[in-house]
Amino acid sequence: MKAGIVGASGYSGLELIRILLNHPNITIDTIVSPSNAEVKVEEIFPHLTDIVTIQFDSLDCQMLANRVDVVFFATPAGVSSESIPTLIDLGVLCIDLSGDFRLKGEGLYEEWYKHASPPMKTLEKAVYGLPEFYREEISTATLIANPGCYPTATLLGILPIIKQKWADPTTLIVDGKSGLSGAGRKMSQVTHYTEANENMSAYKLGKHQHIPEIEEVLRDQIDKDVQVSFSTHLIPLTRGMMCTMVIDLTEDKTSFEIIDYYRSFYKDHPFIRIMPEGKWPNTKGVSGSNYCDIGISVDSRTTRLTVISVIDNLMKGAAGQAVQNMNLRFGLQERTGLELSPIFP
Amino acid sequence: MKAGIVGASGYSGLELIRILLNHPNITIDTIVSPSNAEVKVEEIFPHLTDIVTIQFDSLDCQMLANRVDVVFFATPAGVSSESIPTLIDLGVLCIDLSGDFRLKGEGLYEEWYKHASPPMKTLEKAVYGLPEFYREEISTATLIANPGCYPTATLLGILPIIKQKWADPTTLIVDGKSGLSGAGRKMSQVTHYTEANENMSAYKLGKHQHIPEIEEVLRDQIDKDVQVSFSTHLIPLTRGMMCTMVIDLTEDKTSFEIIDYYRSFYKDHPFIRIMPEGKWPNTKGVSGSNYCDIGISVDSRTTRLTVISVIDNLMKGAAGQAVQNMNLRFGLQERTGLELSPIFP
Amino acid sequence: MKAGIVGASGYSGLELIRILLNHPNITIDTIVSPSNAEVKVEEIFPHLTDIVTIQFDSLDCQMLANRVDVVFFATPAGVSSESIPTLIDLGVLCIDLSGDFRLKGEGLYEEWYKHASPPMKTLEKAVYGLPEFYREEISTATLIANPGCYPTATLLGILPIIKQKWADPTTLIVDGKSGLSGAGRKMSQVTHYTEANENMSAYKLGKHQHIPEIEEVLRDQIDKDVQVSFSTHLIPLTRGMMCTMVIDLTEDKTSFEIIDYYRSFYKDHPFIRIMPEGKWPNTKGVSGSNYCDIGISVDSRTTRLTVISVIDNLMKGAAGQAVQNMNLRFGLQERTGLELSPIFP
Amino acid sequence: MKAGIVGASGYSGLELIRILLNHPNITIDTIVSPSNAEVKVEEIFPHLTDIVTIQFDSLDCQMLANRVDVVFFATPAGVSSESIPTLIDLGVLCIDLSGDFRLKGEGLYEEWYKHASPPMKTLEKAVYGLPEFYREEISTATLIANPGCYPTATLLGILPIIKQKWADPTTLIVDGKSGLSGAGRKMSQVTHYTEANENMSAYKLGKHQHIPEIEEVLRDQIDKDVQVSFSTHLIPLTRGMMCTMVIDLTEDKTSFEIIDYYRSFYKDHPFIRIMPEGKWPNTKGVSGSNYCDIGISVDSRTTRLTVISVIDNLMKGAAGQAVQNMNLRFGLQERTGLELSPIFP
Repeated sequence: MKAGIVGASGYSGLELIRILLNHPNITIDTIVSPSNAEVKVEEIFPHLTDIVTIQFDSLDCQMLANRVDVVFFATPAGVSSESIPTLIDLGVLCIDLSGDFRLKGEGLYEEWYKHASPPMKTLEKAVYGLPEFYREEISTATLIANPGCYPTATLLGILPIIKQKWADPTTLIVDGKSGLSGAGRKMSQVTHYTEANENMSAYKLGKHQHIPEIEEVLRDQIDKDVQVSFSTHLIPLTRGMMCTMVIDLTEDKTSFEIIDYYRSFYKDHPFIRIMPEGKWPNTKGVSGSNYCDIGISVDSRTTRLTVISVIDNLMKGAAGQAVQNMNLRFGLQERTGLELSPIFP
Repeated sequence: MKAGIVGASGYSGLELIRILLNHPNITIDTIVSPSNAEVKVEEIFPHLTDIVTIQFDSLDCQMLANRVDVVFFATPAGVSSESIPTLIDLGVLCIDLSGDFRLKGEGLYEEWYKHASPPMKTLEKAVYGLPEFYREEISTATLIANPGCYPTATLLGILPIIKQKWADPTTLIVDGKSGLSGAGRKMSQVTHYTEANENMSAYKLGKHQHIPEIEEVLRDQIDKDVQVSFSTHLIPLTRGMMCTMVIDLTEDKTSFEIIDYYRSFYKDHPFIRIMPEGKWPNTKGVSGSNYCDIGISVDSRTTRLTVISVIDNLMKGAAGQAVQNMNLRFGLQERTGLELSPIFP
Repeated sequence: MKAGIVGASGYSGLELIRILLNHPNITIDTIVSPSNAEVKVEEIFPHLTDIVTIQFDSLDCQMLANRVDVVFFATPAGVSSESIPTLIDLGVLCIDLSGDFRLKGEGLYEEWYKHASPPMKTLEKAVYGLPEFYREEISTATLIANPGCYPTATLLGILPIIKQKWADPTTLIVDGKSGLSGAGRKMSQVTHYTEANENMSAYKLGKHQHIPEIEEVLRDQIDKDVQVSFSTHLIPLTRGMMCTMVIDLTEDKTSFEIIDYYRSFYKDHPFIRIMPEGKWPNTKGVSGSNYCDIGISVDSRTTRLTVISVIDNLMKGAAGQAVQNMNLRFGLQERTGLELSPIFP
Repeated sequence: MKAGIVGASGYSGLELIRILLNHPNITIDTIVSPSNAEVKVEEIFPHLTDIVTIQFDSLDCQMLANRVDVVFFATPAGVSSESIPTLIDLGVLCIDLSGDFRLKGEGLYEEWYKHASPPMKTLEKAVYGLPEFYREEISTATLIANPGCYPTATLLGILPIIKQKWADPTTLIVDGKSGLSGAGRKMSQVTHYTEANENMSAYKLGKHQHIPEIEEVLRDQIDKDVQVSFSTHLIPLTRGMMCTMVIDLTEDKTSFEIIDYYRSFYKDHPFIRIMPEGKWPNTKGVSGSNYCDIGISVDSRTTRLTVISVIDNLMKGAAGQAVQNMNLRFGLQERTGLELSPIFP
C-alpha cells in the first residue's frame, strides 16, 4: 500500500517518515510540503540523505487520490479541514494528526482553536483514533482524528479507573509536562535553546486546546460532564511527555488491586505497560517507541490515587498512534511497523 | 563576623561558600568535611582555585565555638543533630539546612527520615526558618531549622490564599518538579548523566519527607490538620524547582484580585515577586538568585486556583534562605549579600 | 540464526539488543550478565518490559556454543580475552566490542590498557572489523575485533585522503568529542548529571587507548609509522561523536575535488554519506542510525584540509558496526537490520 | 560613576547589567534598545523585575554624553561604528563589545564582516582590550575594542608559549567549541531547542570573523604573519567556551616546565588560572565568572603541546572582560565587581 504525508516538514511528519520507512506493508509515495515543493527532501533534512530520495510535492488532492491509499495530515490547525472533505469523497482514507476533526461539540473548535469549524458533514464521519477505546470504530473509519498528545497520555492513564467508578472524575487534577518537540518546529523565543535549556515553565494554564478534547472523550466514555483542571508545562528535553494525575478514590482499593485491574483492562492492548507496585515510569523508558507506560500509587493518607502516564509525544502522542490506527483500519496486526524498542540511553 | 560551614562538599555547602564570599559582613573561617580533612578545598573543587585557599577541617565543636559566630550545617540527615546540641550550649548560632530539626510532631522524624529523633530539648529551641512567615522568631533564635526546598516553594505559594480562607486547604494538590542538584552530589544510577538527561521521572510518590514538613507548617499557620497530596518529579536540569499547586476556591475571586492580594501580602518581603496576570514564572528567571516567583491563575470553569511557584533549589531552597535567616538573626538588612541577579541566560 | 550477548547490562549491549530485535534473520537467544544472573532482563531494564522476556544468564562457554551461532562481547577490557579462545575452539563466531583483540603490536595492549595481553594464538585470528576497509577479511573471520568509536570516526574520515597521498599523515591533528554514553554505564563524579550537564571537559589527553589503534590501522593501510595527535573531550549529550581532523594538503585540491573523490571512494559503502560543499555534518543527523556522515573543507589560506566525521558512538561506533560485521560474515546484505533512520529531532 | 549600555536586549548586554548591578563604583544610568524604547526593562526581561526599574531608551549620543561616564556597546556588527565617533568627540569612554573596531588591517573588516569599515580616524584610536597583554594601553584609552570570545580563549592560551619561542606558531591548530549563548538571542533553526539539544555541529569552517582578529594580535605580539587553522563548533550548553590548541614544540620541554612558565607569565593577572599537571579545565569551573582556566599537556610521542583554555563566553569572553577593561581605564582594582565565584554546579 502507498501513503502520502502532508505537512512533512514538521516533527510529526518527519516521525511518520521514520516509522513508515520501517513498515513492511507501506511505501511512502508522496510527501507534501507546499513551501518546499520541488525541493529534494534531503536538502531540507540532510539526515534523510540516501534514505528518502524523492522531492516535496505541493498539495493536490486529485493527484493524491490517484496515487495513495492513505493520507496522513501532520499540519497546523485549519489546514486539513480544507482538503479532507475532497479526499474522502475521492475514497482515500485520511488520518488527521491535527486537531481539526477532534471536537464535535458545537462551537468548541472555534472557541479553543480560534479557527472556523470544519464542515459538519465531514466532522460527523470522524472517528477518534484512540485504539485502546475505539478500536472497532477505527477499523471501518474513512476519517480518523488522531488524538492530541496530552489527551492520549491522560485518557489512557485515567479512563480505566473512572469507567470502573472507583474514583470521582470531578476531582481529577492533571499536571502535564511536555518535552519541547511538542511545541513544534516553528521558532520562538521560548523554544530558543539558550532560554529553554536549564529552564522549566508553565504555559497556557487552563487554556490549552487539549482540555475540551479530554472532556469530550470523558463524556463519551462515562456519559457525564466533567470539567478537568489541566496545567501544562515545558520541560527541557526533546521528546517525552508525562501526565501526573491525582483523583479522589471512592472505593477503598490498594495500589496492588488497582494495578491488577489496569493489567486486566489493557491485556489485549500491546502498547500499554503497567508498572509494578512501587515503580513509576520515566519518559526515557518509552522514547522512540509507541508504548504508554503507566504507574499507579494509592496514598492511603489522603485516599487519593496518583496515576503517572508517560509517552513519547511524537510516537504514541502523534505519528506512532497514527500508524497504529492505519494498521487497524487496513486489517494489519496492530503492532506492524511499530515494534521499535525504546532508545536507551 | 565569621562563619563555619559543615558539609561543604555537597551542593548546598558549596552554594553557601559562593554566597558568603560575596557577603560584606561575613568571612568564611572554617570549612568542615571530615572525609576531606586537611585537603585543600581547591584540590577537591578546582573551580575554587585562588578563591578559597584554606583546607577542609574535621568536625570539632569546641574549635568551631572558639572561632566562628555561626555554623551552617549542610549535611545528610542524622548528622547535625549530633553536634548542634553541643554548639548551642557553647553559644554558637546554628543554622541547619538538613531536615533534622524541622519536624516537631512526636515520631514524625523517625517515621519519614528513618533516623533516630534529635534530642527533644534541642528540638524545642529550633525555629522554622521561613522568613516570610517566621521573621520575628528567627531574629532571636539560637537554632534555625532551614526549610526544605519543596516546602519553601509550596508554602510561599499557597499560604497566603489559605490564610485568607479563600481556598479549601483539604483540596490542595501539589505537583513538585526538581532539577537534579536537589538529589545531591552522591552518585546513583538515576542521576547518571546518560540516564537523567532527556528523561523525566517520578519518585517517592506520597513518601517524600517534605510532606510532613508542609503539613506541620500548615497546621501552625491555620490551626488545622491537612493531608497534602504531593507528587515529586526529577526534571533534567541542574538548578531549579517548580511547584504547581491546584486548590478549590471557596470565594468567587478573579486572578486579578488574588494577584493584588498576594502583592499586598508580600509587600515587605524583598525576595517574593508576584507575576502579572496572564504570565507564569519559569525557573531560569530565578536561577542563581534568592527570589521566589509566583504566578496565579483562576480557572473559572472549574472554580479552582492554580498557583505556580519557582525557586532556585540551592538558593531560596537552601543556601540563600540560610543566609537570609542569618542576616535577620544578626540584625543585618535581609538582602545583604543576596542581591545577586538571576543568571540569564 | 541465534545470537548471544555477553555484557548486556552496559550501553553497547543494550544497543545490540535494540538492533537485533529489529533484525529479520537473528533471534536473541542468550543474554549474559553474571552479576544479574537469573534476574529477568525487564527488572533491571524496565524499558524492555514485554519486549525481552528472558532472564540474564551467567557466562558458560559450552552452553553458548550449544545454543548460538554468534556471541557478541560488550564487556570491559580484559573480559572477552578469557572466553573467546574457548568459544572459537567450539566453533562459535565471536564479535568483540571491547578492545581486547584490536592491538597486534607487541606490548601495546598492556601499555595502553594496563591489562595482560590476550593469548597470541587467538589474537592472530582477530580481524579488525571496519567493513569499509576490511570487508573481505571480515567475511571469513572467526573472530572480529570491532573497532573503537574514536578510531571508527577518525579512520573513515581520514583514510581516503591519506591513501590517495593528497595529505601528509604526519601532520594529522584529531579533536575528538564524545557524548557521555561513551563513558559507559558505570557511575563516576564526572558523569554525575549535575556535573556533566552544562559542562564540557577534556580527558586522557594523549593517553587514550584508541590512539595506538588508529596508528596500527594507519600503518596497515599506508605502510608507514605515524604518531597521531589526539585530544579527547566529553560533551554534554547522551549519544554522538564528532572527530574534527586537520591535516596538511600535499596536493593543490579544492573542497569540490576532494568531496568528489570521497564519494567515489565510498560508493559501494551504504553507511558513509559525504556532505555537499559548504555543509558540515552534525551528530543528530546520524543519531540512532549506523551512518557516518563526513564533511570536507579545504582552507586555501593555510592549505590545510579539515574533515569532520560524525557517528552515533553506540551504533556505527559500537553495536551497529558489530551487526554490520555479523551480516558480512553470515553472507547477509550489509544493511540488514540496520536500515533504521536517524532519530530527528 | 555612571554607565550606559547600548544593545541591552542581547545576552552580552544582559550580562553587563548583571555584573554592573554588583559593582560598587558604577550605577547603570541608561539602557538603550531602540526597538524596545520606552518599555520597562522588566516587561521584556521578567527576571529583572524589582531589580532594574528603568525603561529602555532610544539611542541619543548627546543624551548619553550628558548622563554617563562610559558607554558599553553590545550591538551587532555595523552599529557601534555609527555612534562611537560622536561619543568619543563628546568625551565619553566607549567600550565596544562588537567587532567593529577590532580589525586594523586594510579591508579586513569588510572582507570578514561584510559591512563597511568604520572611519579610519576613530579606528586608529581603538585599543584592543585584552588586559593581560594590553593593560597599559587600556589604562589611557578613549575607545576600547573588547576582544571576541574565541580570540580571548585562544590568545590567552597560546601567546605565552609563542612569545617564548618554544613552539612554532605556523603549526597552530585551534579547535573552538562554543555554547549556544555565543550564537546570540536571535532565533534560528540551528538554535531551536529541539535541534540544538542532543546535537553538536561544526559551522563557518575557516570563515569565522574571529580568525583575522587572532592573526592580527599574533602579528602584533610576535611580529610575524601567521595563518591560523581554526574550526568552530556549537556544543549543547548555554554558557561556556573551550579552545583546544595543538602546536609543534621547538624546544624539548616537559609539561611541568611549561606549566611553571605559564604561572610565572600570568602571576600578576588575577583572572588566569593554570591547572596542575595531569588536570585539564572544564567550562563549568569558570561558569558565571571572569576566569580563564588553562591546562597544559606535552605529548612526548609527537613532540606537540596541547593547550586547553576555557572561559565563560559571556564573561571573560564578553561582558566580564569589558568591565575588567573599564576598571583598568578608571584606575580601579582590576577585580572590582568581578569577584563572583563560578556557579557550581
